[in-house]
Amino acid sequence: MSAFIEDRVSKIQPLEQESMEQAKAHLDQLTKPIGSLGKLEQLAIQLAGITQKPFPEVTPPGILVFAGDHGVVEEGVSAFPKEVTVQMIHNFVNGGAAINVFGRQIGAILRVIDVGVASELDTLDIWKYKVKPGTNNFAREDAMTRQEAEESIKAGIESSERIIAEGAKLIIIGEMGIGNTTCSSAIVSALTGLDPEQLVGKGTGISDESKLQKIQVVRDAISARKPDRKDPLDVLSKVGGLEVGAMAGAILGAAASHVPVLVDGFIASAAALLAVRICPTAKEYLIMGHRSVEPGQGAILEELEQVPLLDLQLRLGEGSGAAVAFPLVEAATRMIREMATFSQAGISTEA
Amino acid sequence: MSAFIEDRVSKIQPLEQESMEQAKAHLDQLTKPIGSLGKLEQLAIQLAGITQKPFPEVTPPGILVFAGDHGVVEEGVSAFPKEVTVQMIHNFVNGGAAINVFGRQIGAILRVIDVGVASELDTLDIWKYKVKPGTNNFAREDAMTRQEAEESIKAGIESSERIIAEGAKLIIIGEMGIGNTTCSSAIVSALTGLDPEQLVGKGTGISDESKLQKIQVVRDAISARKPDRKDPLDVLSKVGGLEVGAMAGAILGAAASHVPVLVDGFIASAAALLAVRICPTAKEYLIMGHRSVEPGQGAILEELEQVPLLDLQLRLGEGSGAAVAFPLVEAATRMIREMATFSQAGISTEA
Repeated sequence: MSAFIEDRVSKIQPLEQESMEQAKAHLDQLTKPIGSLGKLEQLAIQLAGITQKPFPEVTPPGILVFAGDHGVVEEGVSAFPKEVTVQMIHNFVNGGAAINVFGRQIGAILRVIDVGVASELDTLDIWKYKVKPGTNNFAREDAMTRQEAEESIKAGIESSERIIAEGAKLIIIGEMGIGNTTCSSAIVSALTGLDPEQLVGKGTGISDESKLQKIQVVRDAISARKPDRKDPLDVLSKVGGLEVGAMAGAILGAAASHVPVLVDGFIASAAALLAVRICPTAKEYLIMGHRSVEPGQGAILEELEQVPLLDLQLRLGEGSGAAVAFPLVEAATRMIREMATFSQAGISTEA
Repeated sequence: MSAFIEDRVSKIQPLEQESMEQAKAHLDQLTKPIGSLGKLEQLAIQLAGITQKPFPEVTPPGILVFAGDHGVVEEGVSAFPKEVTVQMIHNFVNGGAAINVFGRQIGAILRVIDVGVASELDTLDIWKYKVKPGTNNFAREDAMTRQEAEESIKAGIESSERIIAEGAKLIIIGEMGIGNTTCSSAIVSALTGLDPEQLVGKGTGISDESKLQKIQVVRDAISARKPDRKDPLDVLSKVGGLEVGAMAGAILGAAASHVPVLVDGFIASAAALLAVRICPTAKEYLIMGHRSVEPGQGAILEELEQVPLLDLQLRLGEGSGAAVAFPLVEAATRMIREMATFSQAGISTEA
């Protein structure tokens, strides 16, 4: 792995116990029955450990939407044509997509990053970290070189560091890339050994017949490309996506900076699995936003032993589910920062 | 039932189909795969039907925290002394409770209503609709008269109408009342015929032994008071709580005004069951905020065939879980109001 990536990985530390203990002790003094705010209390403690502060803050959040194209779309795996990737980037820039709407609701800093879109986007006000103009079709050849895979991860790390420098206190990772449920299924199959049939879903809404085709494309690619399960960079380069590599990098970059990451659905979760395989400690920095309709995400949640905050049958991507989940994370920090203690409020604590 | 309550019940209409159909048609034109925002789309459609507007609004929300005391606390059913009800009201007024914190986060209008607190609260800036200073101990006598039960419902209807007049576009119902998981268990047992053992939980955090005692208190009360399952007012008067009656009234008042109600945990759900027994159409105006740790709420959700938005192992009350769930409802309305359509964004819709 490149010295740049190695350096950031070496900075990812286990959560700080002292802040977590202080947070826990404070939570038990707040005017509520002990433990009665359930997962919000667990979240507050986790955030204390991540940020190394007993009274953590997560506003404003920063949303990184990584965009890339996928050569494998040639195999007929998506309900939408490849052009939709770039059309949706225009929609992001114009503020009309779901992630724009939910991003405004939560007061987020939203940045769109081109890490691998097939079209030229020179005139658009987005972040440009293009590694290559779309992956190769992994049904026929490796999606990218190992060097390109490393560059995609580096682009993600740099994006995290840049949005943190702009003031983001929590990172939401999202994506846009027609074909990326196919590549995510391949990544997860390669990393877990699970058969594509257990992982492949209907993506943006393909037919049952197209889904069988999609399963076969992934299965054949795994046989032909032979990604090495123990080598996440090999998996990324052989069957990956440029935006998926970047999302994994964004997780590593945030964790190295003690910033929590709120993970979106299937593609973001596949990136999270990649990041955790590169650096197992990164798992402690993750908050899973929602349970996606895509079956592959369920496998990842099990693998990472995570329970997401929401289960609203979402399957849109872009970071939309994570953005919708963000107010719960904010509620956890407001709880610990703003609630009165029993002694401040003069309340009896025993019957 | 009093003419006042009858009048409001007669105004509760089925959801308006035309607005729901317009909302559905618009959702399918937005820049996302059809149906990909799952429950948020269903919520938007429901809100369109409730408000009779294809582009519904829910901000600002209004939070009604109804407070009452419970004679049954004498039986040793709570982990906290009765005084905590009034101490917590001071905490609400001072802005230090969980519901204050979450209410500020969502920009809510928050009102505390005394419908049955045992202490005098004349000097406090809260809404005063006191029906009586706490219920009687229903282990020994009826909790209240039928007339008082009707007055508690009327207090709730008037509170809803008052906060709607102040600008609230959605009502969150919450409560404070030491002892109210016991009375809610009794209400639900009476209305469903389920044994208290299936309904009683640990409330604010009693021991296993106290829980057995609490089950016995409820079981004995049902035997002794003999509430009539088919008569919700009889149930409310015999084993109810003044704040529970008021919450049921608040639901009826909101529904009569075409305003959605976001329901909190166990006690609010027990009130919702009461409201639906009084007026079955009221069910269509409900959005269940979260799945509580209290087992009795699970029985209500099943009875009302509702799936709540959140499952975060909360058991605090006050309306806190509903307030935490509110941003999801807001997201649904922002989605339909703000997202671009495919034609506005110039996006291809076919592969």
